[in-house]
Order: sequence, then structure tokens, then C-alpha cells
Amino acid sequence: MSTPTAVPPTGRPAATVPAQGAAPSPADTPARAALRRARILVEPSLLGWIDLLPGELRRIARYHFGWNDAAGRPDRGLTGKVLRPALVLSAAEACGGRPEDALPPAVAVELVHNFSLLHDDILDGDTTRRHRATAWTVFGSPGALLTGDALLSHAFRVLADEGTPRAAAGVRALADATTLLVDGEHTDVGFESRGAVPLAECLSMSERKTAELLACSCALGAVWAGAPSERVAALRRFGHHLGLGFQIADDLLGIWGDPALTGKPAGADLAARKKSLPVSAALAADGSAARRLAARYGPVDPDGPPEGPERLTELADLVEQAGGRRWAEHAAAEHADRAASALADSGATGEAAAALAGLAELACRRDS
Amino acid sequence: MSTPTAVPPTGRPAATVPAQGAAPSPADTPARAALRRARILVEPSLLGWIDLLPGELRRIARYHFGWNDAAGRPDRGLTGKVLRPALVLSAAEACGGRPEDALPPAVAVELVHNFSLLHDDILDGDTTRRHRATAWTVFGSPGALLTGDALLSHAFRVLADEGTPRAAAGVRALADATTLLVDGEHTDVGFESRGAVPLAECLSMSERKTAELLACSCALGAVWAGAPSERVAALRRFGHHLGLGFQIADDLLGIWGDPALTGKPAGADLAARKKSLPVSAALAADGSAARRLAARYGPVDPDGPPEGPERLTELADLVEQAGGRRWAEHAAAEHADRAASALADSGATGEAAAALAGLAELACRRDS
Repeated sequence: MSTPTAVPPTGRPAATVPAQGAAPSPADTPARAALRRARILVEPSLLGWIDLLPGELRRIARYHFGWNDAAGRPDRGLTGKVLRPALVLSAAEACGGRPEDALPPAVAVELVHNFSLLHDDILDGDTTRRHRATAWTVFGSPGALLTGDALLSHAFRVLADEGTPRAAAGVRALADATTLLVDGEHTDVGFESRGAVPLAECLSMSERKTAELLACSCALGAVWAGAPSERVAALRRFGHHLGLGFQIADDLLGIWGDPALTGKPAGADLAARKKSLPVSAALAADGSAARRLAARYGPVDPDGPPEGPERLTELADLVEQAGGRRWAEHAAAEHADRAASALADSGATGEAAAALAGLAELACRRDS
Repeated sequence: MSTPTAVPPTGRPAATVPAQGAAPSPADTPARAALRRARILVEPSLLGWIDLLPGELRRIARYHFGWNDAAGRPDRGLTGKVLRPALVLSAAEACGGRPEDALPPAVAVELVHNFSLLHDDILDGDTTRRHRATAWTVFGSPGALLTGDALLSHAFRVLADEGTPRAAAGVRALADATTLLVDGEHTDVGFESRGAVPLAECLSMSERKTAELLACSCALGAVWAGAPSERVAALRRFGHHLGLGFQIADDLLGIWGDPALTGKPAGADLAARKKSLPVSAALAADGSAARRLAARYGPVDPDGPPEGPERLTELADLVEQAGGRRWAEHAAAEHADRAASALADSGATGEAAAALAGLAELACRRDS
């Protein structure tokens, strides 16, 4: 079947990727080494695929990922944490595969993740991400929206590049995860116009919006290594708990994180009345702090003046006094434990297992 | 690999599809019979897949396709022409396959087509489609945008449902067509803020935005029937010319079509300063009509009053006087001829070939 674009061998280094130090640092933990290896392996392949996109979409995608600035000049390179690709590669390795053989799913999950970021930033009206102006603020909403569409379509192109049964199985798994991710985002957007959201609904939303793609990343790595279905399922469960812990940690950062580290304005989640997990836990609590929070957490008047930092600090303090912060820190630690237990069930041992265990710790217990 | 949703056998009839008359009418042309058969075969399968979408996305999708009204009550059913599925099924049949075996690609191309409609309507600000309020006006832009995302992801899920090499090849072809479609839409949006657009750029945009998916539909039908690559290529070429003729005919309807038949407001393309093909051909011409058109076809002042029907009629008359209408009618007929020639190259004979020939005629020579 004729196809309109030439296909680069996945993983072939592109000449224009900024050089990355490949020598391990003595202080590396297995998790940090896995993230660094993922970046080294995935960035050239990802860029090679992005460069197959047509004209203006390529320019917007190169900006979004961090390879170019708004004017198209070289920038500092891939800005994301590459957590999802690292999970794919380490899960493949933990199942006896070679990480470099699992590049197609590693690239594909990063494409889906970034498709969702492009669309989320439009829907949420977020103006900065990773310390840079979001793509829609630079190129307009149509450009960012359509580039997101192209990244999603491209993700399946990458996965199906080899015509094997595992490629088709990968497409199915990634498509299902994407549909749930999109549904989670839709639920999240709907939360903003509601008062309180039951904690169970909020957890279900986070499972879909965040945990599914992380679970799928682990499963894809295992599938690519030819693992039996029980091992795939155990690594999927590992990724699910890692993902929930990750979202909870992210929600904590969204309230108490240092903007210099998170790359997002302080209190943005509170200003948008996000029903994040600490907030939902606080609203579900008894006591005067919870009641006061509920009274102040109604929809924002879009025509009113923007809320000052004092107001956002007051909201954050109420979430903490009502127990939302304590609940979230405990829940994140619990998901880290459950991830460790699923990892043990998977039978993974050695360096790859240590890397996966470390990635779960990093994801769930980030300093907030 | 575990997946979060159960998979319906593609093509299993869903009980809730409104009954459709299956008996052929004596006045049926082969093309109309092919469209009717496509609707009968594809609608239950498509609805079955849509019903696997989660909650609110399913509700929006059911509205968009026409199965439900805005309140969720049964509506008149699938509103689209199902041209793309009909091409898939007839191309498969023309290559010796059974149409019902080609349901996965038939459903997939309709999902991609409708993903693009949902996003286009948001980007273009269109408020009606197929005589109904567009999804974003009913459910809001976030809901329509995310439902579009889910339809795109779902299209690849359907294609990959069988884990065969042809499934992976189908995913690759559909992903490439989708990326080009999205790029074409991006180019089209960019045209609105430009004065004149060279006709060649306009044709290139239409190739990407419209012809690629129609070409891909024909190719997928042939691939599903196990056709050799030369036949696939000939049917792809057939779909390409059908697609260009279709877009030109659509552009003619966008200026001179009867709103009662097109389901769109009269002159909407002119009001939006679309650089459609008749307009670009007119602007590229010599003479006073072309010059007067150029002087009046600058960007619309978004804060100015809406243009009245007299102003839009004046623009349409200038396009006609400058030769834009004549050029387009001639070009559409030429693409119909080239489609017929590619169809002959494909070696297709019999009823399926007659249906394909008729579909090209219908697409390229619609009354404008």
C-alpha cells in the first residue's frame, strides 16, 4: 500500500538532536539512569518521527517538545520527563527484552501524552508549561489543536510500523487507553463548574486521565518483550498504581509545589477550581475547615477580577486544615506500596526491576 | 493484553438501530444501491463501536452521528452520506472480496471523517451541519473536541481489532491519511487570513484535506480483499480523483448550493472568506471581475456587522464573472474522467465497478 511519507527506521539517530552526555553519573539511582537512558534512546527516534509531519504542524510540534523556539531556532531540546517511555523500556527489559527493541511503543506513548497536553492546555486555558509559553498561545488554538490531532494519529502510525501481531495488539491497547484518557479529561473539565465532587468520582477521573496511559506504557513494554499475559497484567497493575500515586503527587504540587520547579503558576489548580484529589478529600471531610472551603470553592465569576495570591493561600490552608494534604500524602505512599507489590508479582528482578521500583518512588513521593 | 472495554464483533447488528428498508428500489442506480448497502451494513457496526465509548463522549457522539437528539432521545439515525464506507465496501468487492468482510475499514474511515467534522466545526465556528446544530453548540467546545479525539482513537482500535498484517497495514495507511487531512485543515484555516491564495496551493490543500481520506478508503477496501499492490494503487488513484472532484463540487455548492439541500447557510464559505477552489481560480484570472473580487475579498473585520445576503450574492457573481465557476465545473468533470480511467486501470469489472463509477459521477457532478 502506498503511503505518503517515507518511514524512518525507529530509533535511527537524527543528526539535529542536541548532544546528550551518555556517561552514567556515579550518583545515579537506577530510576534516574532509566530516565536518562530513555531520553538518549527515545529523543532521536521521536524527533525523526516528528520530522515526518508536514510543514507547519512539524514546526508547532518541534516547539511544543522543546527542540525549537517560537521562531524556529534550536532550543534546549526535549523538555518532558520521558517517564512513560522509561516505563516502556524498563518494563520490556524486566521481561527479558532489549530496551532498544521497544522503541516503537516508547515513542508512541510519548506522542499520545503530548497530544493530550496540547489539547488540555487549550481547554484549560493554561499559558505556561515546562517553563515555556504553551503552543496555543504562540501558534493559536487551531494550530495547537490540529498538531495534537496529528501527534495522536502519528502514535498509531509508529506502533503499526512493524506489521506484526504485537503491533496490532499494541494499537488496540493504546487506543483504549487514549479513549479513557480523553474521557477522564472530559470529566475533569466538567468538574470545574461543579461545587463538590465525591472523592470516588475524582479518583475514577484520575484513573482514566492519568493512570491508564502509565499502565498501558508498562503493559506495552511487556508485550513488546513477548511476556506471558500474567506478567503483562502484573506490570499493568504496577503502572496503574504508579499512575494514581503520580496524579496525587501532581495534585499536591498543583497546590503546594514551587512554581520554579513545577513550571506552572502557584495555585493555578485552585484558581481554576480544579476538583483535584486533595481538594476533593478536604471537601469530603467533616469539620469547620471543610465547610469553609466548600463555601469558598464555588465556580469562579469569569467576569470578576483575578484572585490574588492571598486568596489562593487561604484556599490552600483550608485544604490542609481539612485534612486534604494528609489524605493525599498517605494515599500516594499507599499507591507506591501497591506498585511495589505488583512489581514483585511480575517476577521482575535485577537492574530493570530496581529501575521500575525507583520510578514508582519518584512518581509517587515527589517533594511537595 | 487486557483492555478496558469489551470488543463487539464488527458488523454485529445493534438492536437499537432504526429499521432500514433493505429491498432495492427498481430506480436504484448501482451507486445509490452501493450507498444504501453501505448504510445497512455499516450503521449497526458503527453504532456498536460508538456504544463502547464511555458515558458522556458516547452521548455526544450519538448526537453528532444523528442517532440521538440533544436530550438523548432517539433521532432519525445516521445522517451522513456514508460515501467513504461505500467506497471501502465497493473497492473490496471490485477486488473479489466480500463487502461484509471489509466492515472494519469501512467503520474506521467513517470515524476519522466524523472526527474531522467535529474539530472543523469548532475551528470554523460553524453552527449547523446536516440541518442540525453542530455538537460544539450543543455540548460546548471541550465536549466536541474531546469526542473528536475519542473517535480518532477509536478508528485505529476498530482497524486493529483483528491482529493480522493487513490490520497493521491499514493502521499505517489510515494514520498517514489522517495526518495529511489534519495538515490540509490547518492550511485551510490559515487561508482565511490571507488575501489571494495561488490556485496550486489551494489544490494541494484540497488534496490533503479531502482527497487523501477518499483515496485511502478505496485503498483499504482493496487491501482488505487481498488485492495486489498495482490494483491497490489504481483504486487509490481512483479515490484521489474522485476526492478532488468531490471537493470542487462541494466548493461549488458552498457558493451556489441550495441551503435546503446542503444543510449549510447560503454563502457561508464566502462570508468566512474561504479560499475555496472556484474563488482561487477567479482570483487567479485576469480582468476587471477578478480585480473587483480581489478588492472585496480581504479579511473580514470580526468586530464589524455581519454581511447581508446582497453582499454575498455580489461576491458570488464576481466569482462567476471572473470564470471561477466555469473553471470549477470543468475541473470537476476532468477529475471524474480521470477517476474513470484509474478505475479501468484497476481491472475492476461487473456490478462493483459500476457502483464505483457511479459514486465518482455522483461525487464530482453534483448539481450545483
